[in-house]
Amino acid sequence: MTKIFDDPAQFADDALDGFVAANRQYVARVDGGVVRSTESPAGQVALVIGGGSGHYPAFAGLVGAGLAAGSACGNMFASPSAGQVYRVAKASQAGGGVLLSYGNYAGDVLHFGQAQDKLNAEGIETRTVLVTDDIASAPPGEIGKRRGIAGDLTVFKVAGAAAEAGLDLDEVERLAVKANHHTRSLGVAFAGCTLPGAEEPLFTVPEGMMSVGLGIHGEPGISEQPLPTASELARLLVDGLLKDKPENAGTRVVPILNGLGTVKYDELFLLFGRIEALLTAAGLEIVEPECGELVTSLDMSGLSLTLFWLDDELEKFWSAPADTPAFRKGNLAPRKARSVASLAEEATAPALDATAASTALAATAVGALKEAQAVVVEHEEALGKLDAIAGDGDHGIGMRRGVDAAVAAAEKSHAAGAGLEELLAAAGEQWAERAGGTSGALWGAAVTAVGRTLGSKDSYTSADAAAAVNALRDAIVTLGKAEAGDKTMVDALLPFADTFAKALDDGGSLAGSLRAAAEAAAEAADATAALSPKKGRARPLAEKSLGHPDPGAVSFGLIARRVADYAATIESH
Amino acid sequence: MTKIFDDPAQFADDALDGFVAANRQYVARVDGGVVRSTESPAGQVALVIGGGSGHYPAFAGLVGAGLAAGSACGNMFASPSAGQVYRVAKASQAGGGVLLSYGNYAGDVLHFGQAQDKLNAEGIETRTVLVTDDIASAPPGEIGKRRGIAGDLTVFKVAGAAAEAGLDLDEVERLAVKANHHTRSLGVAFAGCTLPGAEEPLFTVPEGMMSVGLGIHGEPGISEQPLPTASELARLLVDGLLKDKPENAGTRVVPILNGLGTVKYDELFLLFGRIEALLTAAGLEIVEPECGELVTSLDMSGLSLTLFWLDDELEKFWSAPADTPAFRKGNLAPRKARSVASLAEEATAPALDATAASTALAATAVGALKEAQAVVVEHEEALGKLDAIAGDGDHGIGMRRGVDAAVAAAEKSHAAGAGLEELLAAAGEQWAERAGGTSGALWGAAVTAVGRTLGSKDSYTSADAAAAVNALRDAIVTLGKAEAGDKTMVDALLPFADTFAKALDDGGSLAGSLRAAAEAAAEAADATAALSPKKGRARPLAEKSLGHPDPGAVSFGLIARRVADYAATIESH
Repeated sequence: MTKIFDDPAQFADDALDGFVAANRQYVARVDGGVVRSTESPAGQVALVIGGGSGHYPAFAGLVGAGLAAGSACGNMFASPSAGQVYRVAKASQAGGGVLLSYGNYAGDVLHFGQAQDKLNAEGIETRTVLVTDDIASAPPGEIGKRRGIAGDLTVFKVAGAAAEAGLDLDEVERLAVKANHHTRSLGVAFAGCTLPGAEEPLFTVPEGMMSVGLGIHGEPGISEQPLPTASELARLLVDGLLKDKPENAGTRVVPILNGLGTVKYDELFLLFGRIEALLTAAGLEIVEPECGELVTSLDMSGLSLTLFWLDDELEKFWSAPADTPAFRKGNLAPRKARSVASLAEEATAPALDATAASTALAATAVGALKEAQAVVVEHEEALGKLDAIAGDGDHGIGMRRGVDAAVAAAEKSHAAGAGLEELLAAAGEQWAERAGGTSGALWGAAVTAVGRTLGSKDSYTSADAAAAVNALRDAIVTLGKAEAGDKTMVDALLPFADTFAKALDDGGSLAGSLRAAAEAAAEAADATAALSPKKGRARPLAEKSLGHPDPGAVSFGLIARRVADYAATIESH
Repeated sequence: MTKIFDDPAQFADDALDGFVAANRQYVARVDGGVVRSTESPAGQVALVIGGGSGHYPAFAGLVGAGLAAGSACGNMFASPSAGQVYRVAKASQAGGGVLLSYGNYAGDVLHFGQAQDKLNAEGIETRTVLVTDDIASAPPGEIGKRRGIAGDLTVFKVAGAAAEAGLDLDEVERLAVKANHHTRSLGVAFAGCTLPGAEEPLFTVPEGMMSVGLGIHGEPGISEQPLPTASELARLLVDGLLKDKPENAGTRVVPILNGLGTVKYDELFLLFGRIEALLTAAGLEIVEPECGELVTSLDMSGLSLTLFWLDDELEKFWSAPADTPAFRKGNLAPRKARSVASLAEEATAPALDATAASTALAATAVGALKEAQAVVVEHEEALGKLDAIAGDGDHGIGMRRGVDAAVAAAEKSHAAGAGLEELLAAAGEQWAERAGGTSGALWGAAVTAVGRTLGSKDSYTSADAAAAVNALRDAIVTLGKAEAGDKTMVDALLPFADTFAKALDDGGSLAGSLRAAAEAAAEAADATAALSPKKGRARPLAEKSLGHPDPGAVSFGLIARRVADYAATIESH
């Protein structure tokens, strides 16, 4: 149970501020996360890590000399936004390029990916290495689909040490990829964790049982079984990992026994003793092991064992010194402090050359966003409850945060006299930035795409409306990579776009076509109840989901209907 | 809930073995605990710390260069025995004397004190500095009665750094005393912890409430109140500690925010941010703070704030480098490994010059010990349940471990032809060694004292029996420092000794007098139900204890009766 906070909605931010207050010799706060508070040699590759908050010491606790240059810190268990990643990377980079590395989760891939594009476009060479160590999350033939759990540490450590050694981005990337290939983890859980302010755990494991391979956010595992003895548990973990040895594994291995929160030190040590005996009996040589809390999930009761298979090169970088708040090895000379300035918000003086038509349409867009906001506020709690059935229950609050930020940005932009494209770009950016998670990124990209398509013309026709809806659809499909039937908002989006195009083609009015499209979307959203989810990080319980519609599809349908109502009001004037 | 073990009775030992397996670069296992696996400069003062297990990183996690030389590790939440402390100190000392430092708990004081006497007697100069930082456990006028909690760290750190700096025992002791005087802690708890193998928590805090000042083993606190916000909690802790500032506190302070087990990192950081703001607003300068898990209690939900008030001297030793498994600061040059040999059991060849009468009496003593064992086995579970009402529930298992070890030692000694004194010395030593806790030490000392008093004579009279019972009484009273009415075994012991002396004086037979004494003891044990406990580390709930007799008095009465039965059988032969 997470008990200590003032405002649960501010928990992640408040905790990060306190973390920095307790560790000023290592880290400084920037908008979006933390960066080293010490100087890094010019030209050093910057390893930028990150992910949702709630996993300390991952990720902010690993920022320091010999390890990460910065960490983008999202909300609780939610990916940081692309903007956060971008700003942290900008404040971290020292001229040698950026390596983004993080666990393989859809939301993170999406946001870090957008940030990477932006950094590369600005001439800051940026690469990505995903961590995919959790053998329970996909079979050996599909390693690229595996989640990242405590194996984060080996990839980050090797990449950070390689950067510290002055290697270039190619080499740092190569070594990080190699470290990931040589890392395998398997976890078990005894009980779930509780998000700040929540009354109930995010997920549960039946009393007296152990779930094998359960993800650190409750993602589905392999099996459930009664609580084993320590010796049996050691056997299960070691056998599982030895069966999934990487190619060219060799005989030297780093075991990392990681506690997820409430399995405490003595228990971890006891189990470590059993594991060491089994590994030694298997003819393996144990090198510089770790046993403690390295990647946690709030107060989750569980643990994972990681085996990191060494060759000479990897061993050198694993053994290299590092000096961070939560992970120290060897001795590094103290670094000079540097002053860290947050990146100033980029100037957003309106491009005053928007056409009258574009500026007029911008006013309509503000109105439409406010209608979307109103319907999200009305349904926030219901969307949260729907999401909690088989997800992490944050869809209502996430949509609320996103649409609130979008409306605020749009109003500010409108007051400054902006045209449609600029206004929707500001609204979309803020939606993605503040909502967190996948749906925030999708809505942000969709809103931005609509503005970009409509641009600044002297007049608008129904063909423009059709193009705008297609752009909205394409933005979401391209970024989210979901297909029809995956049980996501795409299942409401596609019928919406198809119906709209057809209704316009058939000579319908704009409002009338929107009405038809919205009804199709809402109907399709309801119909997702019959589907089984195929996408989405926090939807571990496929069978629980059956019979309930997808929250993202439902919110899309609700917004579509409300905007159609709004369009009808305008058209009737 | 503590879930990971093979045999709960072996939990502490197994965990310690695993801890050493994971940290061989720092520590080596010796009989009784751990010592540095690296060389210490000859003549360096050895700081030897310790206490019950279950508090990692206290205490074994703090062994290494710049901090402790060794740690004596008792059973779960139970003091190490005098033998453990003695052996760890012997394996730790490097010729500069030994400073014993540990939290102020009755059992630890007793066992470490006995070890200190033995070390001094052997010419290894040994001193003691108790940690008494918990302001909730006694008022400012009685600081010497306060318990030690997370303030352990400041005292150990300063003493360890002073030893590392090459200061002599006088100076190390002076600085440790000063550090303790400058350290104040206050803790809160939200839920209790569960010992390995137990189904129920050791103690509980009502749901939705917070207990202020609750000790780390559930010792009584100051008050209960509803869960506060983080800001309110910060205020409560800071205000409480600022009201209890030491003399000459100055304005520079180290805040140490310590999680007890299941209050996790983000929560601690969040609270730390609030605490830092309050301390700064109070005009204090914050120096090298700590925020994390430093003294835990298994999976207890709670935390404590320690303020360590610095002057220049204390700051120097707080800031000095240290390199241990759980606590690192600055850089220390790597140390050479050393090979650590456990102290061999001291040779116990029997002194074959025992008289025939003494050797014959030794056989009777073996019989009496076996009777005591039988009655303890019969009542082990009931004694445990009785102890669990207002204590930690380990009286049954502790008595069992002690008497089993005593019988085994006595039988071995008897088989080797030992006389009474030698046999009871071996039995008493093993009782104290294996039982752990206060009652084990008291029974061990009592058994040894009886043997020493009876010695090796040519014949024994009833005057010898009277002297033996007085010696038994004196050993327990002297070592345990409890008085009549404190609700301890002394309440059964005193009537036992008085009645025995009077019955013998009145011309009673040995067996008859023993019978009368045993009945008086059992009756007095029952009468302790009306008393309120005044002694005993793990008896937090005085009001719960009312109406139930003291387990130590009850077990004394049971053993007295059984031995009286045995005496009657012998006398009738």
